[in-house]
Amino acid sequence: MKRIVVLGSTGSIGVQTLDVVRSLPDSFAVVGLAAGWNHGLLESQLAESSARMAWDRGGGGFRNGARRVSMEDMVTEPDVDLVMVATTGRAGLAPTLAALRAGKQVALANKEVIVMAGELVTETAREHGAALLPVDSEPSAIWQCLRGEELPARKLILTASGGPFRTRPLAEIAGATPDEALAHPTWAMGRKISVDSATLMNKGFEVIECRWLFSVPYERIEVVVHPQSVVHSMVELADGSVKAQLGPPDMRLPIQHALSYPDRLANATLPRFSALDAASLTFEPLDEQRYPCFPLALEAGRLGGTYPAVLSAADEVAVQRFLDGRIGFGDIHAVVAGVLDRHETGGDASLEAVLAADDWARREIGEAVRA
Amino acid sequence: MKRIVVLGSTGSIGVQTLDVVRSLPDSFAVVGLAAGWNHGLLESQLAESSARMAWDRGGGGFRNGARRVSMEDMVTEPDVDLVMVATTGRAGLAPTLAALRAGKQVALANKEVIVMAGELVTETAREHGAALLPVDSEPSAIWQCLRGEELPARKLILTASGGPFRTRPLAEIAGATPDEALAHPTWAMGRKISVDSATLMNKGFEVIECRWLFSVPYERIEVVVHPQSVVHSMVELADGSVKAQLGPPDMRLPIQHALSYPDRLANATLPRFSALDAASLTFEPLDEQRYPCFPLALEAGRLGGTYPAVLSAADEVAVQRFLDGRIGFGDIHAVVAGVLDRHETGGDASLEAVLAADDWARREIGEAVRA
Repeated sequence: MKRIVVLGSTGSIGVQTLDVVRSLPDSFAVVGLAAGWNHGLLESQLAESSARMAWDRGGGGFRNGARRVSMEDMVTEPDVDLVMVATTGRAGLAPTLAALRAGKQVALANKEVIVMAGELVTETAREHGAALLPVDSEPSAIWQCLRGEELPARKLILTASGGPFRTRPLAEIAGATPDEALAHPTWAMGRKISVDSATLMNKGFEVIECRWLFSVPYERIEVVVHPQSVVHSMVELADGSVKAQLGPPDMRLPIQHALSYPDRLANATLPRFSALDAASLTFEPLDEQRYPCFPLALEAGRLGGTYPAVLSAADEVAVQRFLDGRIGFGDIHAVVAGVLDRHETGGDASLEAVLAADDWARREIGEAVRA
Repeated sequence: MKRIVVLGSTGSIGVQTLDVVRSLPDSFAVVGLAAGWNHGLLESQLAESSARMAWDRGGGGFRNGARRVSMEDMVTEPDVDLVMVATTGRAGLAPTLAALRAGKQVALANKEVIVMAGELVTETAREHGAALLPVDSEPSAIWQCLRGEELPARKLILTASGGPFRTRPLAEIAGATPDEALAHPTWAMGRKISVDSATLMNKGFEVIECRWLFSVPYERIEVVVHPQSVVHSMVELADGSVKAQLGPPDMRLPIQHALSYPDRLANATLPRFSALDAASLTFEPLDEQRYPCFPLALEAGRLGGTYPAVLSAADEVAVQRFLDGRIGFGDIHAVVAGVLDRHETGGDASLEAVLAADDWARREIGEAVRA
C-alpha cells in the first residue's frame, strides 16, 4: 500500500491520478491533496478519499476535517511514500525540492519544474537518494524502454503528434483562436499543455526534461512527428537496437506506471493497445518553420543557466494571455523569443537565480506585450 | 572475450555470425566451426579464424590443421563459452542438448530444435542452469522487450511480414514456383526458412518457440501481419503497457545481441534504424485461408507430445521436395497435414519419443508423396 500526496489534484492529471487510485484501492491510499482555486472539486475529492491533509489557494477549512497543511510541509510528512506533482507552471518547484530532500518518490507531471531547474532538481534527487519518476507520456515511454538496459542510451527518439495545426496552411496558423489551439487531435489535456502542444513548445520542454532525467546530451535527442500518438517514444541502445513503448493515448497508464513503480499492476479500467486497431503508424520530420517555439525551447535548453527558467516563465504568461484573448497565437513565439533575447545570465542555475530569472521574465513580458 | 562455437557456419546465419565476430575482434573468438557439405567455404572460414576444432559431413582433414571433433563433443569443450546453433532441421537437437547439459550459453537460431522438443530443451536448460538465447528476429525482439520486466508477459505480439504471397490472388498461390517462394520481400535468408516464411509455417514455429522460451500459453500469443518487417515483435506487460523492438531487417543485430548478452556492444557495421526512413508501419490481420500452414502448426503445438516433432520433420521433407520440384507449393500444407492426421501419440515427449516420431514422419511422408 503506497501512501500518496497529489499536488494539483483538481487539474487533468490530478483527476486522472485519483481515477487510478480509485481503480486500485488495495495498492494506493491518498493521504494529502492540494489544489489551486477549485475548492468545490477539492472538497468532493476529500469527501471520497482518506486524505487528512489538504491545501488550496482559497484558505479556510475543509468539510471532511482535513488539516490545512502547506504543500511543502505536506510532502515531507513521514507517512508519505510518493508525491504526485501535477501542478502547473512554477508552483510545483518548491514542493518538488522539499519532497526530494525528504527522500520521497516524486512522480513529476509538472514538467515546467524540471525545465526551469533541471540541474538543481536532478542533483537534489541524486544527493538525497530520492526517485524522480516521469509521468508525461513521452519521458515515461523512454523510462520504460530503458528498464533493464544500461544507461545512457545512444539516442532518444521522442514522438510529437504535431498538434491541431500539423496540416493547416502555414499562413493561417498565426491567427488561430484559443478554441482551435485547444482542440488537440489525440490527447485530452489541460489548457496550458494543450496550447504548448499546438506550438510544440511542449515538445521542446520534453527534450529538456529528458536531457536531465536520462543524462543524454541534446545532440542525441531526436524528435519525429507521429500523428497517431500511439508510439509514445523510442530509445536507441548501444548496439543500435531500438525499443518503443506503445499504447492508446490515455494518461492513466503512465500515471499508474509512476505510482506503482517498480511494479506493474493489472488494471481492467485502462484501455488496451491493439496493433490491428493501430493499423498504420506514420513518422514525419518536424518542420521548424511551422513550429518555431520548438527550436526556441531547444536553444534555451542548450544555453542553460537561467535561460530555461525564462523560457518557461515567459511561455506560461504568454499562453495565459493568448487564452485570455490578449495576444494572438503567433505572438506566443514572438513574446517568448523577445524575452529570451533580452535575458542576460551568468550561468548560475541555483534556486535563487532560477526564481529571480522567473520573476524577471514575468515583469519583462508585461512590458513586451504593452509595447 | 567470449569463446564461440558456430554450428552450421556455412549457412546464412553462420556466415552472418562470423561477420559479427569479425567486426568485434576484441569481444569474440571462434574456437570451433561445424558445417554440412560446404567443405570449401568451411576451409576458408577456418583459414580466417582461430578455430582449432572443426567438423563437416564430408570427413577428412582440414588444411589449417584444425582437429576433427563431432558437434556434440565440440560444444562441451571446457574453453567454449557460447554455442551458436545455426544448423537447420533436426541436426541441431543433439548438440543443443549436449551444450545445455554442459552449462554453456546456447544461441539458438535453429528453431526446429525447440519446435520438435520444446519441453525437453527448456527443461534441460533449466536443470543445468544454462542460458538459452533466441537468435531469430521475433523471439529476440520479445526477449529484448522483456529485459528488466517481470515474467510472464500478459501477451506476446509477434509480427509476420506475410512473405512474398501476401497480396497474390489466393487461387494463384498453390502453383507458385520455388523461385517465387524464395523471393522474400524484406529478409534475405536460407532456402528452407524462406519457403517456411512464404507458407507462414515459420510463424507457427516461432509461436511454438515463444511458448517455450517465455512460458506464455498459446492463447496469449498473437500474430499480426506487418509487411515492413521493422517492428520485430511486441510484448504487452501486466499493466497493459506495450513495448516493441524495432530495427532494419538485418539478422546481424539479433545475432550480436545473443552473442554479447547481457552486454550491448556498439558496432558501426550494423545498419541503423531511422523513424523517418520507416515512415509508415502497418498492421493487418493474418488471413488463415491464405496461410493454412500457420493454424496447422499451432494445432500441432497445442496438441503437444510428439506432434510438433512430426510437424517439423514433415515440413522439412515437404519443403525440400517442393524446392526439388517434386511437389507444388500448395502441396506442402496437404502433405504435412496428412502426416499429422495419421500420427498417434501417447503424449510422451522424451528424446527417444521425439526422435522416433521424427523418423516415423519422414518414412510416412515418403509414402504420402508417392500415393
